[in-house]
Amino acid sequence: MDFSLSCPIPKSEYEKVLLAHGGGGTLSHQLINKIFISQFGNDYLNVQHDGAIIEFEGVKFAFTTDSYVVQPIFFPGGNIGELAINGTVNDISVCGAKPLFISVGFIIEEGLDLDELWKIVLSMKEASEKAKVKIVTGDTKVVEKGKGDKIFINTTGIGLVYDGINISPENAEVGDVIIINGRIAEHGIAIMSEREGLKFETKLVSDTAPLNGLIESVIEVSKKITVMRDPTRGGLASALNEIALKSNVKIEVYEKEIPIADEVIGACEILGLDPLYIANEGKVLIFVDESDAEKVLDAMRNHPLGRESKIIGKVIEKGKPLVTLKTLIGSTRIVDMISGEQLPRIC
Amino acid sequence: MDFSLSCPIPKSEYEKVLLAHGGGGTLSHQLINKIFISQFGNDYLNVQHDGAIIEFEGVKFAFTTDSYVVQPIFFPGGNIGELAINGTVNDISVCGAKPLFISVGFIIEEGLDLDELWKIVLSMKEASEKAKVKIVTGDTKVVEKGKGDKIFINTTGIGLVYDGINISPENAEVGDVIIINGRIAEHGIAIMSEREGLKFETKLVSDTAPLNGLIESVIEVSKKITVMRDPTRGGLASALNEIALKSNVKIEVYEKEIPIADEVIGACEILGLDPLYIANEGKVLIFVDESDAEKVLDAMRNHPLGRESKIIGKVIEKGKPLVTLKTLIGSTRIVDMISGEQLPRIC
Repeated sequence: MDFSLSCPIPKSEYEKVLLAHGGGGTLSHQLINKIFISQFGNDYLNVQHDGAIIEFEGVKFAFTTDSYVVQPIFFPGGNIGELAINGTVNDISVCGAKPLFISVGFIIEEGLDLDELWKIVLSMKEASEKAKVKIVTGDTKVVEKGKGDKIFINTTGIGLVYDGINISPENAEVGDVIIINGRIAEHGIAIMSEREGLKFETKLVSDTAPLNGLIESVIEVSKKITVMRDPTRGGLASALNEIALKSNVKIEVYEKEIPIADEVIGACEILGLDPLYIANEGKVLIFVDESDAEKVLDAMRNHPLGRESKIIGKVIEKGKPLVTLKTLIGSTRIVDMISGEQLPRIC
Repeated sequence: MDFSLSCPIPKSEYEKVLLAHGGGGTLSHQLINKIFISQFGNDYLNVQHDGAIIEFEGVKFAFTTDSYVVQPIFFPGGNIGELAINGTVNDISVCGAKPLFISVGFIIEEGLDLDELWKIVLSMKEASEKAKVKIVTGDTKVVEKGKGDKIFINTTGIGLVYDGINISPENAEVGDVIIINGRIAEHGIAIMSEREGLKFETKLVSDTAPLNGLIESVIEVSKKITVMRDPTRGGLASALNEIALKSNVKIEVYEKEIPIADEVIGACEILGLDPLYIANEGKVLIFVDESDAEKVLDAMRNHPLGRESKIIGKVIEKGKPLVTLKTLIGSTRIVDMISGEQLPRIC
């Protein structure tokens, strides 16, 4: 393990933290790998799953944390409170675990309306009931006006890993198909439309939702799921790149199969954004051996959050991490990890 | 359970969140009880321990969360990173559990020096090694300049509850003595001196330390410990008031027995602060039946962090929550819970 007294990110490169260091792309990865993993590194952390899988006293559980700094705190289809519950529920679920307990840490900026806090708390209560998790411990800090931004919420969760499964970003295999449970990029576009004051004929709303029910129904029908991931910050492209990297595989996705709403395509054109890189908060990517694909698709389509589930791609080769997209017009292009910051504070 | 659509803190009282809502005193308690507990409330949360005690699959563990917003982030005797590890290690320990796993969530303000981040990370690594806990999962968010304050850190921890003990703020009994492991108020005064630019002949430093070793040695010698608490935000007075309230007992403490450094008394006079309300980050209050007091004191004094351990008070009556102080001159005064905000952002 590297233990140097000077910071391993060369000063000539960056002296200060940039917004892009939190964007989920290349700079985020550099920060995480060179600073955090290099020092904190251990067998649990190195996997870089959405959470850690821990075993002790004969119990195998998932443990995951996320801080929510979304701006604005109220947006079409949800608010920061419900997002904080659903997001952590989903991170536990994609570890192949049943979410059980959640902690909540509030950092509130002095001057926040108590009415706004109350609305956030009510929707956290509702979201936790919907996801059948218990909020069991918490903490509240208040910082001076101008030293925060209304409210930041950390949620950390514990879940019990389902028997007989082994899900990890390192497990993708040649022959796996990649399934998604519905339309992409709706959370990010809902937030951006709100920020930019865009109006659409059909109101676009965030897809924030707890995925544990859907995921449980999938795990019940197949033991051949290798990877699950919720493509949040950084979108579908970043999630696939991370999996390609950790599993050392080549992934191909088919543009024409990726579910996407016309309004989202329109908004992306106006805003100059690529929907592949835009955050989702109610979507899951499931990698499963081809032989179980139909069973899994059926189970997903029988769930309210999976009606539009589709196979969008495949793992095609071992040995070199790469994600390619077969476009609508039939050409193939490489889908990179995003390098900078497309959408700050999207979650 | 109360489920009203309007905020239960009357508008006539406060419309907005004040700094004092995060101060650990009366307003904090109002916020926690009327807003958080009223909505999230369940058997785990209602105890209002430093963490939740959870049992699943036959394993009993402690789960606790804290966000650290201390300002300045580097202070005499430590920094926000080491504080974030030690603080959560201590919150788990006072639940009567052995700390094992920790999650870390960073909220970084754009523009933070990478060198400062690096120093913080190094000291978190060192603190986690010292406390023998593993950092197993993490998250990083970056917010725009002016929307945060350098860095906020959430740590959430899991520990395994020791066999055969039952420690809770609800368990104090008449006949318990109250032991503290050393001098009070040094963390808060170290921070305040730094903020106010005060210089002392002897450098006052924060007492930040991991208490799990000390607490383990105490649990080994006595099963008659009823309550443990680390008197952080709000100090000794707030911790004792919380215990008096939850256990419904009258507590008496003796001013002349409370260990305190002369420099701290001096600084408190200059700053106009009452040391009983000032934060500690390496102190623990242990309530134990009188019959085991000597054994516990011996074990504590044999530990480097407990050399100056002393009995500072007693639980004297059941039935009415109250904390009184027998002063140096022999009079008795009531020690209230602090109502406002003595020291913002002390941890």
